[in-house]
Amino acid sequence: MAPPRFKRLPKHIGIIPDGNRRWAQNKGLSKEAGYEFGLEPGIQLYEKCLELGIKELTFYGFTQDNTKRPAVQRKAFQKACVDAVKKLSNRDASLLVVGNSTSPLFPPELRAYTTRQTFGRDLIKINFLVNYGWKWDLNYALRNSDSNHTNMVKAIASTDVSRIDLIIRWGGRRRLSGFLPIQTIYSDFYIVDDMWPDFKPEHFYDALAWYEEQDITLGG
Amino acid sequence: MAPPRFKRLPKHIGIIPDGNRRWAQNKGLSKEAGYEFGLEPGIQLYEKCLELGIKELTFYGFTQDNTKRPAVQRKAFQKACVDAVKKLSNRDASLLVVGNSTSPLFPPELRAYTTRQTFGRDLIKINFLVNYGWKWDLNYALRNSDSNHTNMVKAIASTDVSRIDLIIRWGGRRRLSGFLPIQTIYSDFYIVDDMWPDFKPEHFYDALAWYEEQDITLGG
Repeated sequence: MAPPRFKRLPKHIGIIPDGNRRWAQNKGLSKEAGYEFGLEPGIQLYEKCLELGIKELTFYGFTQDNTKRPAVQRKAFQKACVDAVKKLSNRDASLLVVGNSTSPLFPPELRAYTTRQTFGRDLIKINFLVNYGWKWDLNYALRNSDSNHTNMVKAIASTDVSRIDLIIRWGGRRRLSGFLPIQTIYSDFYIVDDMWPDFKPEHFYDALAWYEEQDITLGG
Repeated sequence: MAPPRFKRLPKHIGIIPDGNRRWAQNKGLSKEAGYEFGLEPGIQLYEKCLELGIKELTFYGFTQDNTKRPAVQRKAFQKACVDAVKKLSNRDASLLVVGNSTSPLFPPELRAYTTRQTFGRDLIKINFLVNYGWKWDLNYALRNSDSNHTNMVKAIASTDVSRIDLIIRWGGRRRLSGFLPIQTIYSDFYIVDDMWPDFKPEHFYDALAWYEEQDITLGG
């Protein structure tokens, strides 16, 4: 099916794929079983972005906050992120993993992706946050004191991730949960009540239809 | 009328009082005429917070981005902020104005309020953002290099403003627009479609009723 036509598209979309654990519980599964059902939706969404010509896509994988959860859950979302990044590296994309890779909670298999690399054709930039922390990201600008930076935007750890135009969050919650505080300053925020493993292309198209009606002013 | 009872209240509420210009246009007035109609809603909201025992309230006055608007609008929102702070200083509150007060765009009448002072009884903390800029706030941590801080949260200009639990934005837009990026990391975000000058206590109570149903995890 061809995607609908839009008169104005966001350049950069941020995805908060929430609700994996609630989805699993609703199915009578253990909480951690939900994460692997988030992989296929991610690939579907990537394909829809390619069809529409979206330039940049950022997935909120897991955070340093999330790693305080029970080990069985932590291992499950770490594995899901490793599998997702590997799947994307078999597609057309310029791929970057952003997160604290010096920590033992960062999956070693993903260290190779912490420098941006193009796989296949350079059709879309994809950023994948893995063991990301907003404090880690912002405090980097202070730790990195030999840089003589006076501009946070250029001194943070995630400086290679551009401003996000549209955030789509699955799972019904209306909060950022630490998602790239600098890049989300002006983002429009669309909530899908369904859980992420129940992703449908219509969720995405509804978000884009809503976005094109927004008046973008950047405060001016 | 007594307020409804709530089983769990936010400690700190952030208010984005948007829609003054659209409200004025809808009434056939010039855009800048809308701002003065935002004063009375602010006082009403303050009174509702006192009745419920809310501990801290932050108003998004105007930003450095906003000052790029036509001068007639800029003067109108500067005056509305001065009048609002003066009204609040005649009530019971511990009041702080946060913003770049070294700029000519900062109303000189408000310089006296950039250190927190208690007026009347210390029943609620109120923060009022005036000529606030997210870059100004965060870059302060970098400029302030003799502080030896390694923690952004303690080094930013708005460090005296605590974490916000609930943001209520009037005027239908679903974005932060640079509102305190550090303090809003985990905030739940409630949107009122009505414009700010059409404030009704029910908007506020609906937001609180929604908030008490949210599952607060802070990422854990």
